[in-house]
Amino acid sequence: MIKVGIVGATGYAGAELVRLITSHPLAEISAISSVSFHGQKLSEVYPAYININDMECETQEEVVEKSDVIFAALPHGLSQELAAVCVEKEKTFIDLGADFRLESEEDYKEWYDGEFLDKELHKQAVYGLPELFRENIKKGKKIIANPGCYTTCSPLAIAPAVKLGLVETKGIICDCKSGVTGAGRKPSQGNHFPELNEGFHAYKVASHRHTPEIEQTLSKLAGKKVTVTFVPHLLPVNRGILATVYADIKHGVTFEQITNAYEEFYKDEYFVRVLPNGMNADIHNIKYSNYCDISIHHDKRANKLIACAAIDNMVKGAAGQAIQNMNIIFGLDEKTGLTIIPPAF
Amino acid sequence: MIKVGIVGATGYAGAELVRLITSHPLAEISAISSVSFHGQKLSEVYPAYININDMECETQEEVVEKSDVIFAALPHGLSQELAAVCVEKEKTFIDLGADFRLESEEDYKEWYDGEFLDKELHKQAVYGLPELFRENIKKGKKIIANPGCYTTCSPLAIAPAVKLGLVETKGIICDCKSGVTGAGRKPSQGNHFPELNEGFHAYKVASHRHTPEIEQTLSKLAGKKVTVTFVPHLLPVNRGILATVYADIKHGVTFEQITNAYEEFYKDEYFVRVLPNGMNADIHNIKYSNYCDISIHHDKRANKLIACAAIDNMVKGAAGQAIQNMNIIFGLDEKTGLTIIPPAF
Amino acid sequence: MIKVGIVGATGYAGAELVRLITSHPLAEISAISSVSFHGQKLSEVYPAYININDMECETQEEVVEKSDVIFAALPHGLSQELAAVCVEKEKTFIDLGADFRLESEEDYKEWYDGEFLDKELHKQAVYGLPELFRENIKKGKKIIANPGCYTTCSPLAIAPAVKLGLVETKGIICDCKSGVTGAGRKPSQGNHFPELNEGFHAYKVASHRHTPEIEQTLSKLAGKKVTVTFVPHLLPVNRGILATVYADIKHGVTFEQITNAYEEFYKDEYFVRVLPNGMNADIHNIKYSNYCDISIHHDKRANKLIACAAIDNMVKGAAGQAIQNMNIIFGLDEKTGLTIIPPAF
Amino acid sequence: MIKVGIVGATGYAGAELVRLITSHPLAEISAISSVSFHGQKLSEVYPAYININDMECETQEEVVEKSDVIFAALPHGLSQELAAVCVEKEKTFIDLGADFRLESEEDYKEWYDGEFLDKELHKQAVYGLPELFRENIKKGKKIIANPGCYTTCSPLAIAPAVKLGLVETKGIICDCKSGVTGAGRKPSQGNHFPELNEGFHAYKVASHRHTPEIEQTLSKLAGKKVTVTFVPHLLPVNRGILATVYADIKHGVTFEQITNAYEEFYKDEYFVRVLPNGMNADIHNIKYSNYCDISIHHDKRANKLIACAAIDNMVKGAAGQAIQNMNIIFGLDEKTGLTIIPPAF
Repeated sequence: MIKVGIVGATGYAGAELVRLITSHPLAEISAISSVSFHGQKLSEVYPAYININDMECETQEEVVEKSDVIFAALPHGLSQELAAVCVEKEKTFIDLGADFRLESEEDYKEWYDGEFLDKELHKQAVYGLPELFRENIKKGKKIIANPGCYTTCSPLAIAPAVKLGLVETKGIICDCKSGVTGAGRKPSQGNHFPELNEGFHAYKVASHRHTPEIEQTLSKLAGKKVTVTFVPHLLPVNRGILATVYADIKHGVTFEQITNAYEEFYKDEYFVRVLPNGMNADIHNIKYSNYCDISIHHDKRANKLIACAAIDNMVKGAAGQAIQNMNIIFGLDEKTGLTIIPPAF
Repeated sequence: MIKVGIVGATGYAGAELVRLITSHPLAEISAISSVSFHGQKLSEVYPAYININDMECETQEEVVEKSDVIFAALPHGLSQELAAVCVEKEKTFIDLGADFRLESEEDYKEWYDGEFLDKELHKQAVYGLPELFRENIKKGKKIIANPGCYTTCSPLAIAPAVKLGLVETKGIICDCKSGVTGAGRKPSQGNHFPELNEGFHAYKVASHRHTPEIEQTLSKLAGKKVTVTFVPHLLPVNRGILATVYADIKHGVTFEQITNAYEEFYKDEYFVRVLPNGMNADIHNIKYSNYCDISIHHDKRANKLIACAAIDNMVKGAAGQAIQNMNIIFGLDEKTGLTIIPPAF
Repeated sequence: MIKVGIVGATGYAGAELVRLITSHPLAEISAISSVSFHGQKLSEVYPAYININDMECETQEEVVEKSDVIFAALPHGLSQELAAVCVEKEKTFIDLGADFRLESEEDYKEWYDGEFLDKELHKQAVYGLPELFRENIKKGKKIIANPGCYTTCSPLAIAPAVKLGLVETKGIICDCKSGVTGAGRKPSQGNHFPELNEGFHAYKVASHRHTPEIEQTLSKLAGKKVTVTFVPHLLPVNRGILATVYADIKHGVTFEQITNAYEEFYKDEYFVRVLPNGMNADIHNIKYSNYCDISIHHDKRANKLIACAAIDNMVKGAAGQAIQNMNIIFGLDEKTGLTIIPPAF
Repeated sequence: MIKVGIVGATGYAGAELVRLITSHPLAEISAISSVSFHGQKLSEVYPAYININDMECETQEEVVEKSDVIFAALPHGLSQELAAVCVEKEKTFIDLGADFRLESEEDYKEWYDGEFLDKELHKQAVYGLPELFRENIKKGKKIIANPGCYTTCSPLAIAPAVKLGLVETKGIICDCKSGVTGAGRKPSQGNHFPELNEGFHAYKVASHRHTPEIEQTLSKLAGKKVTVTFVPHLLPVNRGILATVYADIKHGVTFEQITNAYEEFYKDEYFVRVLPNGMNADIHNIKYSNYCDISIHHDKRANKLIACAAIDNMVKGAAGQAIQNMNIIFGLDEKTGLTIIPPAF
């Protein structure tokens, strides 16, 4: 059994890791930590877990000591030191935060107002989006930068077209809509039930921190610098992100070519379901699971590709993908513990 | 008192007309009709209206006979004959359906598979989007084609920039999200509570009938043919549409120019609230009211204008706007009966 | 015009008073106050009110000075001093808080851990549930204790039966379900969207502070001490309370007698709609309005009366009822400004 | 592997069986049937199941032929013939419908307007509420009458107190609130999203068919005829039932006795979690799982026991319990395949 430690277990991503690892046949939770709830049981914070996980929150140090792999779900800026400790102790470190996601320190400074404390450490990190960068992940690096939620679904929606050069890389628009859990467990006025329920709005328009991360991924696929327009919106639902991505189809490329490219690109990807023509990706159909549903559409009149991708922001957009990365690193079947079936309703 | 008749009163748009006209100080409901509920009281269909409107549904003929103005909320194709009758009897006809919205019969054929039964009649119709075409409406024509919901908020979001030539008209994208009432009162699998709640998806991607109507309006503003990409999505809320509209800012135009243009363009429009910089239009803030809230944003990196417009699809997107048109035609203050305050929560 | 001041205008009850007074034809808001948002505009706190109410929050003193009637929506304990000031200045004071609701200081101590600062002042207060105590309110006292939300719908549900002695007063159960706005504007973990959405639970079971208030009202109606079992639950909706009240029908009393009693009791009450046999009171049908819908049902097998009452907790359960009281005191038609029609959806 | 056939697989209970059996390590779906969708794939009806279950709907006969155990999720009245066929072929028949739940044909006639086609067959049926009647189920009868949703949580809420004679059996009230999936997959006006969302109401007050079934269970526990008052309400959530059950505590019984009784009664029951004092059972915490959370409360003033029980109506209230019964009959660990963890949000 892989011994799994979770740092920041009482946040939403941490709690979701607990849910998923508990069902994993080859891994078990060895220890959990939380600054806010140190000494308390996880099931006091989340009564859903009574009798399922009644572990007490320990210190980070104890978690590191007791575990083979450490998942960190921390506010950005707090993972770098922990990563250094884990690397030193030869533990695998999977970071659900943003500290290691951007390869460019300049971007990190611009968007997060932070710095790379140890540049060598950052070189040991690999970006953990398996469907696009599996080979890198397999190479056994010890730090995994687990992608964010928007930065998983937006690239997956458009990856085949970008990778194969079927669309223009200029002018790509990612209009994304996320459920509320993406904003975390801490109550705020904006997430207070009566102010969000029956509401809908964009936020951080063209200024959200996930922008450079989406661009980093698409630039790698395109082999050149890609700039995107990214606009997130807040949906009055608990879970799920739908990314609606727009791109101009290149002159001479047919939509049939694009359709074929998507099917080919994802044909061996268990977690990506390219939907049959005529269907629309819906967050309703992937909730609680690690699936990414993709539907592609042709605006014939403007000759644009419109690709919709739906993921559960807490699973494929956070905890599930982190476990997928763990499975890869530990040489397990990638879907071990992740075959949760999305409820039909 | 203006005598108002409502044909199709038991559909959602009809029921919303009843709510609004009942509070109108200078109009009163003279008669209502419904094919499905003929002979029944409106308050049997909508118990919210018990003691408020217990009128029985009569025939279309009776409604026409008893009224100065007839509002029709009918499935498309059914308004043309009724309009002819009203014109003949010198009644004002305000059509909440689609029959008179498109000026091009060709477009009507393509998108609605219908035809103009009487071409002369269509020439008497005017498109009732007051903020953009008030002068036409004032000219006293007898048939008003009341715009659809998406076709109100999408053009209002981008109108100042298009009208003043501040953005490219090529490549405009309208990514819209609508509450469920937009789909009407008839139950369907897709609107069955458990299949829509906690879900979100696009539908009729780049193929929705409101596309040519949005284009017609923007083409008039631009003075040339405009093609748009229009993608509607279904929100798990009762009311409200948010349109997120993307356009490339023309070379040499500053965002400040655009901001000024919006403020100037809408400065005398009671129902349009251009929000202060930094705020985001939210359907939460205009529910049950005739307001259209607009926030504009600058993607500096891609130099795009991103304009968000929020309306209540049943009010400014249907019944409220219809009454606004009535007020104009009858020479009333345009906001009479429409100063409903959106609840803060 | 009656000059209305609102103390605590940025809480939910205060904001709802603003919505309603703004539409009141014979009253106008003269000043508002807020401790948390002093100096800020109300529309900065509630963007729904932009262009509708952009007043700045002043001090309590300024509000009192500028107003004929002062509505206070304050945490309990803070109204007594303010009431004294208003009485001294001969202003009408309508308290939406709990300070003056209980006539028994002993009860107030037990349930609120507070005391009556000035016992004479309390004698000047009258309990403002118009349908049950209109004559008292009319007597022109200067302090109105506006009932709470649960304490409006629970007594209204069962009042005719209790008043006329048709049910046993022993063993009455009020199983109530309230929307989230009842818990106020302040964010908390329990009202954080993801933890409440798709959830439902009871809280403060048989220990909620509204218990003695419900009992006080029913005791007055019965002419003897009544004890009730009161269990509130939290509904994942913004507004509305449904009270399901159970009582044993007295031996020899028929359900027809009870039905007749309800119709007779409420026949002149504009805001109470006793629904036709076979219908169920639904919070859906009274939202945003001052109506209280009541349906009564007979459990023939256990010979119990089951009465359901639905109100909007922010209107008939708070701000609307407060205005109803103002109308009575100022000699206006009781429904002035309160004929808001509940939306049908 | 146990070969499982599902008759009526495209209804909500059937679809939920598919979700659960697919994760069951010792059972597999051999065939499914549906009258409405014969010949279609299940994943066409429920796109959530694409790549997970793409089986085609066959006939009932084929399902019976290919399976060791047949789960039937059919409208009442249709199970009796199928049960006869299964018994003849020596297959286990687990009925999620109502045909075999009531032991009294008289009750069945009164509440369902049906009759027992074969009285001998009914004698072979056992009522499958394992926590209360496990020994009967183990006896290996071939027909299991799987309880309904309300009829699982209401008795579980009060069972220890009734069984041990700690409360009066006269006057028990079950005030229940159910999510919408309880009403099934077929769209109706009442379950149309805009008419149910933000609404709440009671229905079938004191006349719901689950009444005699609750009474049958409680009567068995009490050893005498028990009559209850049962009022169901419709919650605007997808899943979950909360039963709030009221009973008079017997003279001389302390609440501590009751608390101890609950803990003792359920101490070996994996799926029942008696919550610590001070907590409230919440449907939020058991969604998608087979748990039944119970909280008990004391109304000291009226000396009543108030017990709240929360279940997922589709799992413990339908498909999960059916599998629990299968596990018992086939001699498996009762929780096999049912250790689904309720998501924390």
